[in-house]
Amino acid sequence: MPVLGIIGAGQLARMMAHAATDLGVGTRVLSRDPEASATSAAEVVVGDWDDPAAVVAFAETCTAVTFDHELVGDAVLEALSGSGARVRPHPAAMRRASDKVEQRSVAPVCGLATAPHRLVRSAEELTGAARDLGLPVVVKRARGGYDGRGIQWVRDHDELRTLCAEGVDDVHVVEPDLAIEAELAITVARRADGSAVAYPAVETHQRDGTCRTVLAPAILAPGIDAALRTAALAIAAELDHVGVLSLEVFVVEGELLLNELAPRPHNSAHYTIDACATSQFENHVRAVLDLPLGPTEMVVPAAAMENLIAVEHGQEIRRDLVLPGGTTIHLYDKPARPGRKVGHLTAVGSDPAVLRAQVSAAADHLLGARVAPGLDRCPA
Amino acid sequence: MPVLGIIGAGQLARMMAHAATDLGVGTRVLSRDPEASATSAAEVVVGDWDDPAAVVAFAETCTAVTFDHELVGDAVLEALSGSGARVRPHPAAMRRASDKVEQRSVAPVCGLATAPHRLVRSAEELTGAARDLGLPVVVKRARGGYDGRGIQWVRDHDELRTLCAEGVDDVHVVEPDLAIEAELAITVARRADGSAVAYPAVETHQRDGTCRTVLAPAILAPGIDAALRTAALAIAAELDHVGVLSLEVFVVEGELLLNELAPRPHNSAHYTIDACATSQFENHVRAVLDLPLGPTEMVVPAAAMENLIAVEHGQEIRRDLVLPGGTTIHLYDKPARPGRKVGHLTAVGSDPAVLRAQVSAAADHLLGARVAPGLDRCPA
Repeated sequence: MPVLGIIGAGQLARMMAHAATDLGVGTRVLSRDPEASATSAAEVVVGDWDDPAAVVAFAETCTAVTFDHELVGDAVLEALSGSGARVRPHPAAMRRASDKVEQRSVAPVCGLATAPHRLVRSAEELTGAARDLGLPVVVKRARGGYDGRGIQWVRDHDELRTLCAEGVDDVHVVEPDLAIEAELAITVARRADGSAVAYPAVETHQRDGTCRTVLAPAILAPGIDAALRTAALAIAAELDHVGVLSLEVFVVEGELLLNELAPRPHNSAHYTIDACATSQFENHVRAVLDLPLGPTEMVVPAAAMENLIAVEHGQEIRRDLVLPGGTTIHLYDKPARPGRKVGHLTAVGSDPAVLRAQVSAAADHLLGARVAPGLDRCPA
Repeated sequence: MPVLGIIGAGQLARMMAHAATDLGVGTRVLSRDPEASATSAAEVVVGDWDDPAAVVAFAETCTAVTFDHELVGDAVLEALSGSGARVRPHPAAMRRASDKVEQRSVAPVCGLATAPHRLVRSAEELTGAARDLGLPVVVKRARGGYDGRGIQWVRDHDELRTLCAEGVDDVHVVEPDLAIEAELAITVARRADGSAVAYPAVETHQRDGTCRTVLAPAILAPGIDAALRTAALAIAAELDHVGVLSLEVFVVEGELLLNELAPRPHNSAHYTIDACATSQFENHVRAVLDLPLGPTEMVVPAAAMENLIAVEHGQEIRRDLVLPGGTTIHLYDKPARPGRKVGHLTAVGSDPAVLRAQVSAAADHLLGARVAPGLDRCPA
């Protein structure tokens, strides 16, 4: 039996492991925490995914290895690169795709614009960028940020002074505060031989820098879906990426601007588990193990995904687990912390507006925000 | 975190474990074989599920325990009954539902007829039954049979003499060779408080006594679906069953005859993973843990499920895993033996005839029976 190794053991690894199991593929996760999300779904090797020697030793026991997250440091990527392990995506692609500076450098390849931006490495450069672009600006750490972390808003000169006083310790991208009309995302899967497939583009809705809701498919003007698909496939080819890759874009004044890349299964495509012919997790596993990619079309007319985001430490999901019809729950077994994703819900059906209201009410109910009418009884 | 214990670790336990994981429920399986199907999806306790002391010790470590299969002996059921463990279904219901004599005794409760039959315990009684019913007859072991095992056809007096000479060592049900027009199945889920839900009735197709294909929903004359639903819910209530229960019926001369019950998730409802709002596995877990049952409606117009049945020892599934659009594979990680189910495929879409042809061709391809045209390329 082939064994897929995963560096990290969060919910992405957990959902990859489920997909792998159904394909008759074993999974092994490298985890610091023996109780991390994926450890109940895979064989566990306890070790530090930031320790190059530990990661290489782990990788060499697996048929192929992939990543749960892109927070892996350069030393680990270099060590993997020099090892005999089959690492997918390739460490070089992983490095480029997870760096916001590199991400912007591939935009021309794919025919997308980027927002006006400056790269800064010091307080002086930040002050200059803020002057050039005009306040307010958004300051994004080039590497290591996710779910709103590593992103800072600078609204006025006081905030600029405070940030400069704290010091700018690493490369950051500075962008103006854009009038974003919509946020879209598209996910593609690509194999080492260059064959690739694209999922439908989706609409994403953020709050506090974290994705809350995803609507699939996005309702787009003619040509936009094709442009996004072409762009994402071109980026995957440019990076020689293997596995799943997501492209996030802003719509500003009707124009598509590249926002971010994620070189792994992505929150915006979790809906594919319940709504598509092949889930993003299955296609990631297929790509990494060099199996033919599965078809990506939706098997239902529409889907809405809502993240379950904890608001306080130790918060429990309401254990009745009552869900409206057509809604599926995926819990991650992660201890709750404010702002942490502890699971997600997917509703499938035909009317996006109904589905969106449905998952939102169900999420509120499960998180105890309020009792959604009609949800506190068995829906049988 | 609640922990669901499962006695046995076959593919049903494996699929229950996946469903439990998404509900934030841990699973622990009691398995003789540390490499059995479910062991990659759950915590494993190696032990003999036929040893009452081992089973009770296991059960007492879990929030609730359920069964992967109904081959559990009376001694184990009695020991569980007398223990402090929360066992679902109740051992008494498990005992009754898995005995073909008891199954026939509940038929009147649910408004279904049974085929004419005789119960026999000896060669003499078998000879008498064959005389009464007229050859050919079918001889079914009352307990412990599955997938055609425990079932014997007696076509003529020579075969009758041979069987009698071998001896009849246990209670058997003898039935005439029926002119079966169709086989249907329906699955229900029931909680301890009596609340229950029913899945759509499905059409099942057997070969060599083993289910090959399931089409959902069954296309039925008006009233038949309701009659089946009523019958299955009545049986579950009569047995005070907790969990999922399937009822299989024959259609003979337009009449519904009770064929068999299964007090657990059933092959005929595997399609629910990919085609229904809540899978049978999730609803089994919900029922066993006393969570509200999820809705059972299909989220797609139609589905076809095809078992992957090995034809020889050690047979490998073709590792390309190419599948036509809308088809999902579920492999069980079980060593191949002739006649053994090693996985299943589910196709979802709108035209049942197309879906049936699709899963059948895909199964042939994966089992190497022949290369289905158009299936040996990436469907991207």
